[in-house]
Amino acid sequence: MKYQVLVRLKPGVLDVQGKAVENGLKDKKFDAIRNVRVGRVIELEVDGVAAPEAKAQVDEVCKLLLANPVIEQYEIKEVA
Amino acid sequence: MKYQVLVRLKPGVLDVQGKAVENGLKDKKFDAIRNVRVGRVIELEVDGVAAPEAKAQVDEVCKLLLANPVIEQYEIKEVA
Repeated sequence: MKYQVLVRLKPGVLDVQGKAVENGLKDKKFDAIRNVRVGRVIELEVDGVAAPEAKAQVDEVCKLLLANPVIEQYEIKEVA
Repeated sequence: MKYQVLVRLKPGVLDVQGKAVENGLKDKKFDAIRNVRVGRVIELEVDGVAAPEAKAQVDEVCKLLLANPVIEQYEIKEVA
């Protein structure tokens, strides 16, 4: 089982990385680009575990290690 | 136009963040999880520009600011 986890800042949380990208773009005259938000994508494989249990494990790992639940939200997608 | 850009290390490039996550998981007895790869997801909006030109701008921005073409590859998806 292969999973993709998208970790993003919650809406309303100031995204300093995104702002830095926006400012960099303004300097380079890309004025049409806005609302840049930067997050993380984590791809991982779960071996030898049935699907529902595998997804539960990924969810636990997200809470434990991959996302900061105070300011971030995550989304788990099965990719194969 | 809203775009999602996934930036990942090229296959074969050592992913130290991914390895750190794997090691952290082993300490916590998640032995079934392997091949962890960590990348970035960037979401942005392009306003007032037609679709093909907007995508071309996003592509340019990827090369300029968002990805390091030496060790990273990127993928652009239109999300809305």
